[in-house]
Amino acid sequence: MKILLKNAELLTQTGEIGQADIAIEGSIIKHIGEIEKNWQADKIIDCSNKLAIPGFINTHTHAAMTLFRSYADDMTLMDWLENKIWPAEANLTAEDVYWGTQLAIAEMIKSGTTTFADMYFFMPQVAQAVEESGIRAVLARGMAGVAPTAELALTESESFYREWQNAADGRITVMLGPHAPYTCPPAYLKKVVALSEKLGAEIHIHLAETAGEVKTCLEKHGKTPISLMNDLGVLDRGVLAAHCVHLSSEDIAIMSQKNVRVAHNPGSNMKLASGIAPVPEMLLAGLSVGLGTDGAASNNNLDMLEEIRLAAMLHKVHRNDPLVIPASTAVSMATNLGAKALGLGQVTGILAPGFKADITLFNMHAPHWYPRHDRTSLLTYSASAADVHTVIVDGKVLLDNRQLTTIDEEKMIAEVQKRGMRLIR
Amino acid sequence: MKILLKNAELLTQTGEIGQADIAIEGSIIKHIGEIEKNWQADKIIDCSNKLAIPGFINTHTHAAMTLFRSYADDMTLMDWLENKIWPAEANLTAEDVYWGTQLAIAEMIKSGTTTFADMYFFMPQVAQAVEESGIRAVLARGMAGVAPTAELALTESESFYREWQNAADGRITVMLGPHAPYTCPPAYLKKVVALSEKLGAEIHIHLAETAGEVKTCLEKHGKTPISLMNDLGVLDRGVLAAHCVHLSSEDIAIMSQKNVRVAHNPGSNMKLASGIAPVPEMLLAGLSVGLGTDGAASNNNLDMLEEIRLAAMLHKVHRNDPLVIPASTAVSMATNLGAKALGLGQVTGILAPGFKADITLFNMHAPHWYPRHDRTSLLTYSASAADVHTVIVDGKVLLDNRQLTTIDEEKMIAEVQKRGMRLIR
Repeated sequence: MKILLKNAELLTQTGEIGQADIAIEGSIIKHIGEIEKNWQADKIIDCSNKLAIPGFINTHTHAAMTLFRSYADDMTLMDWLENKIWPAEANLTAEDVYWGTQLAIAEMIKSGTTTFADMYFFMPQVAQAVEESGIRAVLARGMAGVAPTAELALTESESFYREWQNAADGRITVMLGPHAPYTCPPAYLKKVVALSEKLGAEIHIHLAETAGEVKTCLEKHGKTPISLMNDLGVLDRGVLAAHCVHLSSEDIAIMSQKNVRVAHNPGSNMKLASGIAPVPEMLLAGLSVGLGTDGAASNNNLDMLEEIRLAAMLHKVHRNDPLVIPASTAVSMATNLGAKALGLGQVTGILAPGFKADITLFNMHAPHWYPRHDRTSLLTYSASAADVHTVIVDGKVLLDNRQLTTIDEEKMIAEVQKRGMRLIR
Repeated sequence: MKILLKNAELLTQTGEIGQADIAIEGSIIKHIGEIEKNWQADKIIDCSNKLAIPGFINTHTHAAMTLFRSYADDMTLMDWLENKIWPAEANLTAEDVYWGTQLAIAEMIKSGTTTFADMYFFMPQVAQAVEESGIRAVLARGMAGVAPTAELALTESESFYREWQNAADGRITVMLGPHAPYTCPPAYLKKVVALSEKLGAEIHIHLAETAGEVKTCLEKHGKTPISLMNDLGVLDRGVLAAHCVHLSSEDIAIMSQKNVRVAHNPGSNMKLASGIAPVPEMLLAGLSVGLGTDGAASNNNLDMLEEIRLAAMLHKVHRNDPLVIPASTAVSMATNLGAKALGLGQVTGILAPGFKADITLFNMHAPHWYPRHDRTSLLTYSASAADVHTVIVDGKVLLDNRQLTTIDEEKMIAEVQKRGMRLIR
């Protein structure tokens, strides 16, 4: 399949806005600029009044938790987990996770996301939803060393890796997903590291999300979570670390040395009152800091534009400095830095020849996109997820004039509504 | 005109979600619940899968500053004002303000806002745009005592009040708009108070927006801005105070005593790094704290759902307390508390018989509205402005299935694009 994006305004690799045609051949961006006359497209998309950007990279979520959207809010973390989320999660079936993931994918595609990183359970069903939908994903089976399923999780992670790594035309990457230092004791994490070495799989883990976690870790191990992970060899395995809210400067130095990649989740951190991550310092230290929505139960949607806006605004008021995290940086975090955070920096996150054709087209013809003094500013501070008009992943159109092409939206909605109500009974 | 909203889910006065029919007669909500059989509607709107809420009240904006949307971002306040905004504003004509206001109104209606409070200049053109569009507004001619136009502004304010107070079928309220303590010296504010007494007009003013403003005020007058305003008699006139970011507990006590009403602008305060207002304390003190977008140049859109979400999330992380400003409080700030802040608490902001029919219908049939465990949570944390389906103001439909009925959107867009580009040359 050859697709021509005709006359697009686009966000270039250097962060500038250009105007060009984009030629897509198979799964790849073949050319940007003037297209050879003898190159014949099978499909031409008129991009006038549209802005083409690399599809958003959601670097941290628990997709099927969409089923708990709006079930429990405005609670303390432990009250929320112990009295609401965990009892409801105990009712989840593999089919629930399939449908919950499909809801998440539908929402992500409709809001311009082309790749997401997931950590949950019943992962073969998650992978199935990813394969069918056409989206790109980095999947990890969540593992808790303190749970009765600790050993099972290791076995399942290995078989999940063997079955799904590089599957779905290469759209699926599998990582190992030890949940967090406070749910995975050192002995368990050593097993995870050994499995990671055996398989060649990277690691997706929650680190330093709350002040309480860091305090407990210091009391128990005499080290910060980052330092503990370093000593256990976790950080040598290629790590995607979610949250990283409470860090010392030593932690950041270690992360820089070990090239730890970060998923910053400003919406979740705000809603759960976890704290404000030292993003400016992490960026200054050269870390690849992407953006994530976290699960819909603590967000409560999967809209990456909201995370872009929060990243651009929260740190300004927190630092009393309106120059911190300008628009272009926030957009970069949601695209190319996010791709790097997932280990996909050479694959997606940039509009350039040779990269995967993972592209989101925003319809700019709406009042809030005028006047057009600066497109990057408009995207960052004024755009709406509902402006997403077309989404292409791996060279295939997954959203066409706001209509999903691979998901039966009505059927999915009926399923998730029914299942969501059942889960909380 | 009689309109029947058939089978609506609605946000009731008590903050609960109910299910009922809503009968509108003329500009008023006549009845909610079972409708008498002999009451015949001229128009019936099927509200299945829709959520009816009181239209949002945007308590503080500078509407025509939409023309500067995306022109200048990520700058320090004085650099932004002196080198970008003020030079561009110097180029504004009355016609520019008319079109910029029309853009703002179009955007506000499309995102569910039914009333806004404005402070700007060329106010007869603003009032004209309000009258033509059908929206409700509280308008103030901005006055700066330090400007060459200081005396003119007083004269214009008086004539503007006499011409437009209670105009447009009562949809327009006029206030006086002394800009701020740092632009209006005490002697000038005394003139404003005298004019306010003469006309019976209330006052809309920026107060305690930045730490620098408070510091300078203390150095110059030995008092905080709130205390200074109190001594000058400003607070006896019925005051809508925008921002109120930097307050002492004495300030809040004074505000409570004088029933000062507040426009909280979380988006603008974050983007300009102004600080985080003590909203929980103000609410605890019984103040009517509404939400506002501020001008589009510092936001950069006029989407009240974003302000609701920021209000619900920013204070949680700032206070390290996920229980602060729950969803229902944030929605209340955008509706009934906002109406009270504008002095319209007996007119709009609640769905109840006898109140003005200012109603926004959200289409809930989209992935991010499922599953529907809690509608108020979905509205607060997951909804999009693009879900706004129908907007009714004063009993008239201004948005019908997402189409503006009183504004020629294409013509307006062409005008604002052309004018926006001219202004910055």
